[in-house]
Amino acid sequence: MSKPYVRLDKQDAAVLLVDHQTGLLSLVRDIEPDKFKNNVLALSDLAKYFHLPTILTTSFETGPNGPLIPELKEQFPDAPYIARPGNINAWDNEDFVNAVKATGKKQLIIAGVVTEVCVAFPALSAIEEGFEVFVVADASGTFDPITRDAAWRRMEQAGVQLMTWFGVACELHRDWRNDIEGLAALFSNHIPDYRNLMTSYDRLTQKG
Amino acid sequence: MSKPYVRLDKQDAAVLLVDHQTGLLSLVRDIEPDKFKNNVLALSDLAKYFHLPTILTTSFETGPNGPLIPELKEQFPDAPYIARPGNINAWDNEDFVNAVKATGKKQLIIAGVVTEVCVAFPALSAIEEGFEVFVVADASGTFDPITRDAAWRRMEQAGVQLMTWFGVACELHRDWRNDIEGLAALFSNHIPDYRNLMTSYDRLTQKG
Amino acid sequence: MSKPYVRLDKQDAAVLLVDHQTGLLSLVRDIEPDKFKNNVLALSDLAKYFHLPTILTTSFETGPNGPLIPELKEQFPDAPYIARPGNINAWDNEDFVNAVKATGKKQLIIAGVVTEVCVAFPALSAIEEGFEVFVVADASGTFDPITRDAAWRRMEQAGVQLMTWFGVACELHRDWRNDIEGLAALFSNHIPDYRNLMTSYDRLTQKG
Amino acid sequence: MSKPYVRLDKQDAAVLLVDHQTGLLSLVRDIEPDKFKNNVLALSDLAKYFHLPTILTTSFETGPNGPLIPELKEQFPDAPYIARPGNINAWDNEDFVNAVKATGKKQLIIAGVVTEVCVAFPALSAIEEGFEVFVVADASGTFDPITRDAAWRRMEQAGVQLMTWFGVACELHRDWRNDIEGLAALFSNHIPDYRNLMTSYDRLTQKG
Amino acid sequence: MSKPYVRLDKQDAAVLLVDHQTGLLSLVRDIEPDKFKNNVLALSDLAKYFHLPTILTTSFETGPNGPLIPELKEQFPDAPYIARPGNINAWDNEDFVNAVKATGKKQLIIAGVVTEVCVAFPALSAIEEGFEVFVVADASGTFDPITRDAAWRRMEQAGVQLMTWFGVACELHRDWRNDIEGLAALFSNHIPDYRNLMTSYDRLTQKG
Amino acid sequence: MSKPYVRLDKQDAAVLLVDHQTGLLSLVRDIEPDKFKNNVLALSDLAKYFHLPTILTTSFETGPNGPLIPELKEQFPDAPYIARPGNINAWDNEDFVNAVKATGKKQLIIAGVVTEVCVAFPALSAIEEGFEVFVVADASGTFDPITRDAAWRRMEQAGVQLMTWFGVACELHRDWRNDIEGLAALFSNHIPDYRNLMTSYDRLTQKG
Amino acid sequence: MSKPYVRLDKQDAAVLLVDHQTGLLSLVRDIEPDKFKNNVLALSDLAKYFHLPTILTTSFETGPNGPLIPELKEQFPDAPYIARPGNINAWDNEDFVNAVKATGKKQLIIAGVVTEVCVAFPALSAIEEGFEVFVVADASGTFDPITRDAAWRRMEQAGVQLMTWFGVACELHRDWRNDIEGLAALFSNHIPDYRNLMTSYDRLTQKG
Amino acid sequence: MSKPYVRLDKQDAAVLLVDHQTGLLSLVRDIEPDKFKNNVLALSDLAKYFHLPTILTTSFETGPNGPLIPELKEQFPDAPYIARPGNINAWDNEDFVNAVKATGKKQLIIAGVVTEVCVAFPALSAIEEGFEVFVVADASGTFDPITRDAAWRRMEQAGVQLMTWFGVACELHRDWRNDIEGLAALFSNHIPDYRNLMTSYDRLTQKG
Repeated sequence: MSKPYVRLDKQDAAVLLVDHQTGLLSLVRDIEPDKFKNNVLALSDLAKYFHLPTILTTSFETGPNGPLIPELKEQFPDAPYIARPGNINAWDNEDFVNAVKATGKKQLIIAGVVTEVCVAFPALSAIEEGFEVFVVADASGTFDPITRDAAWRRMEQAGVQLMTWFGVACELHRDWRNDIEGLAALFSNHIPDYRNLMTSYDRLTQKG
Repeated sequence: MSKPYVRLDKQDAAVLLVDHQTGLLSLVRDIEPDKFKNNVLALSDLAKYFHLPTILTTSFETGPNGPLIPELKEQFPDAPYIARPGNINAWDNEDFVNAVKATGKKQLIIAGVVTEVCVAFPALSAIEEGFEVFVVADASGTFDPITRDAAWRRMEQAGVQLMTWFGVACELHRDWRNDIEGLAALFSNHIPDYRNLMTSYDRLTQKG
Repeated sequence: MSKPYVRLDKQDAAVLLVDHQTGLLSLVRDIEPDKFKNNVLALSDLAKYFHLPTILTTSFETGPNGPLIPELKEQFPDAPYIARPGNINAWDNEDFVNAVKATGKKQLIIAGVVTEVCVAFPALSAIEEGFEVFVVADASGTFDPITRDAAWRRMEQAGVQLMTWFGVACELHRDWRNDIEGLAALFSNHIPDYRNLMTSYDRLTQKG
Repeated sequence: MSKPYVRLDKQDAAVLLVDHQTGLLSLVRDIEPDKFKNNVLALSDLAKYFHLPTILTTSFETGPNGPLIPELKEQFPDAPYIARPGNINAWDNEDFVNAVKATGKKQLIIAGVVTEVCVAFPALSAIEEGFEVFVVADASGTFDPITRDAAWRRMEQAGVQLMTWFGVACELHRDWRNDIEGLAALFSNHIPDYRNLMTSYDRLTQKG
Repeated sequence: MSKPYVRLDKQDAAVLLVDHQTGLLSLVRDIEPDKFKNNVLALSDLAKYFHLPTILTTSFETGPNGPLIPELKEQFPDAPYIARPGNINAWDNEDFVNAVKATGKKQLIIAGVVTEVCVAFPALSAIEEGFEVFVVADASGTFDPITRDAAWRRMEQAGVQLMTWFGVACELHRDWRNDIEGLAALFSNHIPDYRNLMTSYDRLTQKG
Repeated sequence: MSKPYVRLDKQDAAVLLVDHQTGLLSLVRDIEPDKFKNNVLALSDLAKYFHLPTILTTSFETGPNGPLIPELKEQFPDAPYIARPGNINAWDNEDFVNAVKATGKKQLIIAGVVTEVCVAFPALSAIEEGFEVFVVADASGTFDPITRDAAWRRMEQAGVQLMTWFGVACELHRDWRNDIEGLAALFSNHIPDYRNLMTSYDRLTQKG
Repeated sequence: MSKPYVRLDKQDAAVLLVDHQTGLLSLVRDIEPDKFKNNVLALSDLAKYFHLPTILTTSFETGPNGPLIPELKEQFPDAPYIARPGNINAWDNEDFVNAVKATGKKQLIIAGVVTEVCVAFPALSAIEEGFEVFVVADASGTFDPITRDAAWRRMEQAGVQLMTWFGVACELHRDWRNDIEGLAALFSNHIPDYRNLMTSYDRLTQKG
Repeated sequence: MSKPYVRLDKQDAAVLLVDHQTGLLSLVRDIEPDKFKNNVLALSDLAKYFHLPTILTTSFETGPNGPLIPELKEQFPDAPYIARPGNINAWDNEDFVNAVKATGKKQLIIAGVVTEVCVAFPALSAIEEGFEVFVVADASGTFDPITRDAAWRRMEQAGVQLMTWFGVACELHRDWRNDIEGLAALFSNHIPDYRNLMTSYDRLTQKG
């Protein structure tokens, strides 16, 4: 009756950031914009922090969908960057799939805009090819909660694991002793309540 | 551990529009009316755009349930139109099932009013007969979110894939290069935010 | 890939109304009281309308939980009525299980207060014994949406089908032609929007 | 088609309270604080009431995460208390797992802060080792409903049963006759509506 | 600094029920239909209970707006009934104003559909003519909460007092001793929680 | 104690549409986009229907704020159109104020994006100059409900009357007999529920 | 243009607790029960802490409305206690008004159940007699948010100041230096987040 | 009938930031933390951008309330900083009032934590002394929406103008031509949707 715990492993995971473009972001209305921006940048920061191979892709970025948000390009200047000429499902793009496979990882952490298309389609394709897929739900956005809910259920049905960026960071890190300051900085930069706890703590322990 | 991606294919899909009648629409309170109307017409437009065989059906349309909304009849003047004399589950109506089978398609895209009856019943019947069933959740409406939620779970349990119209359009289209203008027009007509992106873009690139 | 549609059949279904007691009802806060009362009475009316064997049970009704709401007792004066002396799970009460089995039905339609206990416990027990279980979600109530959600998931995991009273009525009736007036009266009495449609219709067709 | 009812048994259950620390609690925003505090203390009270072996654990309690809330320490002065030096997943801590196994129980009732990490990680690990896992959803808290929802789905996918403290108490107690006063006191102390019912009842029956 | 309490007085109040018509009711989406129906009938019952002169009016009832809901006509068979041929503001209709003035009352209790038009317009007109106006907010409905809110503010600005049916009943009754049974029956018929309290009470005091 | 009813009069009202620009619209998140677009176009249609002088203005339309949505320009090709070079408050622009004064009207119906700036600022300025100001709340949008609420209160405090487009249309029209078909068309085009009522009605009365 | 700040003064304020009875509390659905109970007890605790004269009153407490919640009676064993035989507005009861006037205070802090009746009626009466009235909004409850909102507006219109218990405590206390420990204990007992801050603080400063 | 527009003037306004302390921030639950942090920093940035005299104050910062968030201290290293030893209302502190008066400004822009105390108390005091008070509602936070609502109404009643940071910035700036880049940078840093518009624009106009 036991069931294996398919657990993120920083040696075996890659991050796919799909279509976080300036135009498409105006479609996202299931998460408040300040929070969504924070979640996307938190995911980007953790990918860098854990040295996970990261792949950037965009859809039709010279048209109304707009360019990738500059923060992501700056964060990963040397990452594979696939500006898809037309494929809606990134997995239909050979360069993208090659880049994914070139990482040699079998766990894929995916986020993007919009959830039911740019995230769900490659997630379902990757599951079909035997990858372990983890969707970062709070760094993925779409039109409204009904659409998000339907997308989550479709992905879940196929075996996708739904997570949020904080859980991903914790599952990858495993033990605070691996690096207390680094993880604390990541949390302090993206969780105001955690930052406040740290500031209060530092003040009382003379570090602040 | 891999699982096949059961993906919509425009060569192999038919659309079933069930009971979008003027009286029944007054029962729909889980989606705001302007948005719901837009979703239903978007689905209707995409069915036409992709030349998917489409079947219209109504329940007791001469009574209080009222006639089919005229936009659907106008959109598909030659589609099979089954005014069911009494069967609540459209699949209990032989003409309807025959029309479905006559399309020769094995993927069924279903939407209707109300979700837990007019959509769920034929969806469950079609699953039983081996069809691949995709319910367009945002073009289907019902009394309240509790009812919708229960209906979604029952359908999901049976293997129905829950989608929304935008995801259906994207999964059918596959690649923008198949027809940029057509898909853009579909989105512009039904997603105000997308239309705004396009207007801004056209202005700056001298097309507007 | 097909999956059988386990469909309610009026020849094979019994209704279990569990602990709709005046005290316990004050605990229900996941559905607005006017609506919840209407849903419970609608379920009771449909049980009578379809002549489904119905079983009433209460928990500790001489204490603070209070008596069964009088409308249910009046509706089913001759139904088995099991005032449980202490068992929280009605299925732990031999008289109750005997009454269920005496109906000879294999489909059980269950509703009660509170959802995660008085409904979920006998539902899970009945599934274990091989019954087909349909929980009427909107005639079952509990403390808050979080509790309801958790209860729904636990029941779903075990194979319970979640429905609402309107879907139950429609699935049992199958075809309006079986009795138009009876079903219309049921709907008119419990769905204000439907009643309005009928009143408008009757006025215009000279029946009103 | 029947499915076994995996039911809580007070002879075979242990309670794991994970990281209910004063700092971490300021991160919990998916449940209102008065209610959340009540739920955690209700779970703690029921663990004591049913004499369930209970294990306390904290993460980095000398840092900003803060100490365990004092009420829990006072309630279980002799319980195993594992102040984890760094492991994020309590199950990665050998002392913790040893304490769990030393109880000799195969059912684990888990609650903690935050849900998707401190609860989900050990829950998934315990499932993998063959335990029956029951997560007390309303005594577990996290950043927001999106995060909670994703966490619930991941745990559900793995076979965790989601419950709330009231359902846990009822499933463990089985029959009011086992001890009416004790259970009534538990409910009266943690459910204001139930307390009111009891006060009204006592007044009218001369006990108040 | 004191301010007079303009208090409802059953000797000096009339009730105006404006456009509760079957078609218009399908526009009401700021209150759930079961609850709204209950509120309207509760207001109607209290008008009768306190023998308040009551005036019924409809807008274009032979067209799509539909007939008055039959319950109101049955409740007040002899009340002035003004089927307005076209005036949107009932106060623009001379027959209506004459009927109001014929009551000789200076306090007007108004409810209707939709709030910002059928209620607000005559309310503002009546204020202008020096009446004391009390709008029964929960027996008035409209498209959505934004519209309701704007309507409430406009009426408030002009001096309308916003109340709900329960407050109106209590302010008119003043003292339970005037008639305990009558008021209790009114409440029992329209407040499920109150009915439950009474049922529990009666059972314990041997009246049930 | 009476208070004058400051009522919209089609002979004395002008409409000011402020900054409904494609870029700024992406900031609007207090109303769902399909509904907001419908409300803006409904207001535009009613302005035309009642032949109200209408003034269009934009802020910095050659920059990221984007052009006016084309539908408004097409609806009022000959209206004064003030593309403000920099003034945030349209009333600080002399051309705009001159255009307003040139209408000779003393009632101003204002809507725009975003509510607390583009609407509130000119509304407060116009009040100061003695105009009667009516803000169309549902054709004005902003970042979130908190911002909207604060803006509404500030305007209300200054004497602005808050309305929605439907109330504006009804108050201007006064009597259906002035033109039944025109008003019905306006409502049918912008209120799906009303359109459904009309379709049902026409079918039953042989007009459909 | 300045406006006097009518500020609570512990020398000049009395507290009126109106109808917090066990039956009536089951009607309160605009605030979650755990939170509401906490708010009422916090108000009671602050009344005692500041030695404010406090008056208790109930409506028909021998009937279904039920007895006063015992905590209040225990907190103020010697307070005037007016069990009203029938007056719905406590201010219509001579004993109650006499008790209020006997306090010699001109500031009245009022809370009760239900807001629009048991709170609003005496609040409006007291305003009329020249008292300064402060309603404790979060220690007053009613059927739903619409009812609460209408009640708040009616009271506000008459000059009532709306506050919540925390603001009342702070405005009465004026300066932490008057008694740090006492106020901290009040907050720690009724604000879980504050208690957590204090626990963390004490731990780090060696007090915990 | 006209009413003067009391308009923010950058020559005549000062900013008061009250008690944005790390401990107190954990009490704020009426605005999501990422958004609230952004709002507070946006207000701080605009105060600096417009060179408004700014005053910082804290309550009991050596205790559990915690230190001022460091970002504010860093932004205004030379601003008057009043660490109040005990006064809850900052206006009761002579140093604070002196600092306010020393600015020589008559318009006060106030924000703080928690709204009904730290903001409302000094706002009411300042109004009493004849200042024009503008509360920045979205940079002020408190326990829950009920508390916020009550606080807003009390302040509004006294003549406070409620605004949000974006409106404050726009009203102070008056005209984009005063400095396009500076204002754009302010908006780009604090409004993700605006930043996206600017990025898209720059890309298309060759600036990006």
